[in-house]
Amino acid sequence: MKNKAYCESMRLTVDYTNMMSSALGDKGFTDKALAGYAAQARQAWQFVADNRGKDELYMGWTELPYNQKEIVADIKATAKKIRKEFKYFVVLGIGGSALGPIMAFTALSHLHYNDLPDKVRKGPKFFVEDNVDPVRMHDLLDVIDPKKTCFNVVSKSGATSETMAQYLVISDLLEKAGVDLKNNLIFTTDAKKGNLVKISESLGGVKSYVLPDGVGGRFSELCPVGLLPAAVLGIDISLLLDGAAYMDKLCKQKNMYKNPALLSAVLQFAAMQQGKNIGVMMPYSDNLKYLADWYAQLWAESLGKNKTLDGKACNVGQTPVKALGVTDQHSQVQLYAEGPYDKVITFLSLGKYKYEMPIPHGCRDIPDVGFLGGHTMEELIQAENKATAFALMQAGRMNYTVTLPCLNAFTLGELLFYFELQTAYAGAMLNIDTFNQPGVENGKKATFALLGKSGYEAKKAEIESADALQKYTV
Amino acid sequence: MKNKAYCESMRLTVDYTNMMSSALGDKGFTDKALAGYAAQARQAWQFVADNRGKDELYMGWTELPYNQKEIVADIKATAKKIRKEFKYFVVLGIGGSALGPIMAFTALSHLHYNDLPDKVRKGPKFFVEDNVDPVRMHDLLDVIDPKKTCFNVVSKSGATSETMAQYLVISDLLEKAGVDLKNNLIFTTDAKKGNLVKISESLGGVKSYVLPDGVGGRFSELCPVGLLPAAVLGIDISLLLDGAAYMDKLCKQKNMYKNPALLSAVLQFAAMQQGKNIGVMMPYSDNLKYLADWYAQLWAESLGKNKTLDGKACNVGQTPVKALGVTDQHSQVQLYAEGPYDKVITFLSLGKYKYEMPIPHGCRDIPDVGFLGGHTMEELIQAENKATAFALMQAGRMNYTVTLPCLNAFTLGELLFYFELQTAYAGAMLNIDTFNQPGVENGKKATFALLGKSGYEAKKAEIESADALQKYTV
Repeated sequence: MKNKAYCESMRLTVDYTNMMSSALGDKGFTDKALAGYAAQARQAWQFVADNRGKDELYMGWTELPYNQKEIVADIKATAKKIRKEFKYFVVLGIGGSALGPIMAFTALSHLHYNDLPDKVRKGPKFFVEDNVDPVRMHDLLDVIDPKKTCFNVVSKSGATSETMAQYLVISDLLEKAGVDLKNNLIFTTDAKKGNLVKISESLGGVKSYVLPDGVGGRFSELCPVGLLPAAVLGIDISLLLDGAAYMDKLCKQKNMYKNPALLSAVLQFAAMQQGKNIGVMMPYSDNLKYLADWYAQLWAESLGKNKTLDGKACNVGQTPVKALGVTDQHSQVQLYAEGPYDKVITFLSLGKYKYEMPIPHGCRDIPDVGFLGGHTMEELIQAENKATAFALMQAGRMNYTVTLPCLNAFTLGELLFYFELQTAYAGAMLNIDTFNQPGVENGKKATFALLGKSGYEAKKAEIESADALQKYTV
Repeated sequence: MKNKAYCESMRLTVDYTNMMSSALGDKGFTDKALAGYAAQARQAWQFVADNRGKDELYMGWTELPYNQKEIVADIKATAKKIRKEFKYFVVLGIGGSALGPIMAFTALSHLHYNDLPDKVRKGPKFFVEDNVDPVRMHDLLDVIDPKKTCFNVVSKSGATSETMAQYLVISDLLEKAGVDLKNNLIFTTDAKKGNLVKISESLGGVKSYVLPDGVGGRFSELCPVGLLPAAVLGIDISLLLDGAAYMDKLCKQKNMYKNPALLSAVLQFAAMQQGKNIGVMMPYSDNLKYLADWYAQLWAESLGKNKTLDGKACNVGQTPVKALGVTDQHSQVQLYAEGPYDKVITFLSLGKYKYEMPIPHGCRDIPDVGFLGGHTMEELIQAENKATAFALMQAGRMNYTVTLPCLNAFTLGELLFYFELQTAYAGAMLNIDTFNQPGVENGKKATFALLGKSGYEAKKAEIESADALQKYTV
């Protein structure tokens, strides 16, 4: 674990001034209104404290920063080997098995990683295939050589149709190329049961990592699902876990005004109570672009529920919207500033970027251009970030800013754990099961029915009778 | 123009059965309720018909399919030259100057275009730089050689801070490399005024295309802003315009039940009247992923307004949400199925994908995997698309499906014009100015103030007094 001074210098901060009535007038929360949530916040905190680590509640993820010493060592050794032996590394997975790896890749790698010359990149080209679009699979196969590729197949059950369809395509190709499959595969799956365990046995033992019980897909980035791809990219996964542990420690505080994740959950919950059903996540950093995608799953799938914990009907959940600063100032901010008062905007800001990128002097005779010279792009993006928060505040729009002092594996670990805890707290305040996803079952069954899987004849009949309805088309 | 039989075989269709009460019960529109919008629809149609082509209303975009014969020929010749002479092509632009080019690139190029060997790609590597993140600019410069790069600088006024900051960085690099700037630059800008016109003169005449008056950024894909980058990618821009013209013709029909864009506008407007403030755009195609980004600007910036045309205060606009099928079934559909009844989901479907991608037989002893063998990925993605629409319908969620028979330049042109007309109709029904964006001005001014631009001292004082407020942080 990193020393205390390092951790504190790397601490993220949340500035929620622009959520409050002192900035927003009657569009903001008064101190008193916010304080009114303290009891609920305390209960949510207690719920998480009481249940952390419980696999049966899918809360095993809270212990990932602490219980993976041996796994981390194993992953590091495997990753070193992969970096040496393979030219390509492809994750076959979807949902939580993909969004975390994509997020960490984008956050901590060169933004044109795959375009770098091999000797600069020093590791395999990296792809995460999280769709079954036939064009995408076709086009991927144009740019990789399967024989020189390590495929990381990620599925708890080994029954995820998308991932297993990809597996069938890839394993057939490898076989036809005369490759001993187990040399080019790594599975991340259940410890004992499931189809990938069976397949591993039939192939003579595929190197496999465990997707632990109690860790749902959207909370899996800090287990082998995310750690192996990150390590293959050369990311220091110990630092990632250290950052998460540091955030966990900060959030041990019961007092909501001292606990960043708890206070953020309260702000979002209070906004939802006012009918703000949209949550915009707007990083001012291309490296954090896919953080918004990862967060969108975490927040949507965790909170979008139709039943409370005591079985009452409800329809809750805030819809996450992904935006990118400054880019989407030129696309979405018009709506944020003038449209309905139906959203909370979360800015993700960096205290310092990896580079400053000076803007040279030029066009001195053109004031609209010349004034930029002598500044840096870092100054420009930070000024735009601050200006946008300010303008939205003046327009009476709730927004708050999460700032990382800089972006590295430690601060990314902090940020992930902050959002995971915030989600757990918010779910507890909504009194729902934060960790299940029953709402996707019907669609899965309908897919099986449409593909003629046996056992789904009744569902097929249902679909056919819907097809027989009057069609409205234009 | 393509012949009639070709056009009709390429016609997009909209199936809105799952918006109606016959499918959704009391969660859907009755025939009568929908018919109740006919008069408003007729007015909106009339507004667009009466004002099309009027530059002063920023409705010049309606004529782009018809009035660019010479420009198209010029662009094709220039693109041919660029494809031969340059190794890289970089668009410097933001908002509407970037989202269209990114969308068309992703829709109609190989999904790993830049990774292809030069002799397969047969044109320059392609980048659109729509941010001022210093890390992104730094990393771009690691993978291009500016001397071998054609930079397309896109800004109507030449005063867009982001684009001009990029220009200062790039022009300085080119100068230091001893390049005659005008050889590596192409401007897309105003015909006569603006800073890029001045800069062009000072450089001895830079090849420039006109961003016409009356075409706002978000409606600019079918003018040189989008056509030049598309042509450089080898896309048939005449077909793109033909497709747009074909859709325009379809939408000449006053009867909303026969006019796809008008009917779609009515559906969205009626849903907004019910409080559905979220519109999800969910293509089932990786090629159409960034269509959702392009649409998000079109819809958000056009409809997010705080004033009606007759000057009354309002706060209207539906927030666009980008999703990707099947990927986001594993991330967002839980919320769509069980969360609040606050959204309309638009599926974008393909009748036929470019490839089928057969799924080989395998794992026959494992039923959950084995049943996939013998199908194709095309069947799988289409089944999942249909299954998701069906499951959302059963959950009482409004959704409709726009189907392209296949994806090519013609159908993409249709689709773009369909959405542009839909937006114009919806804005007319909301009785707002669909084509302005006053809500971003305050943020721009605040940026100028923070960077010390002269003339913004008062704004700076405002920001400082906001900074002096009590800060709320955790």
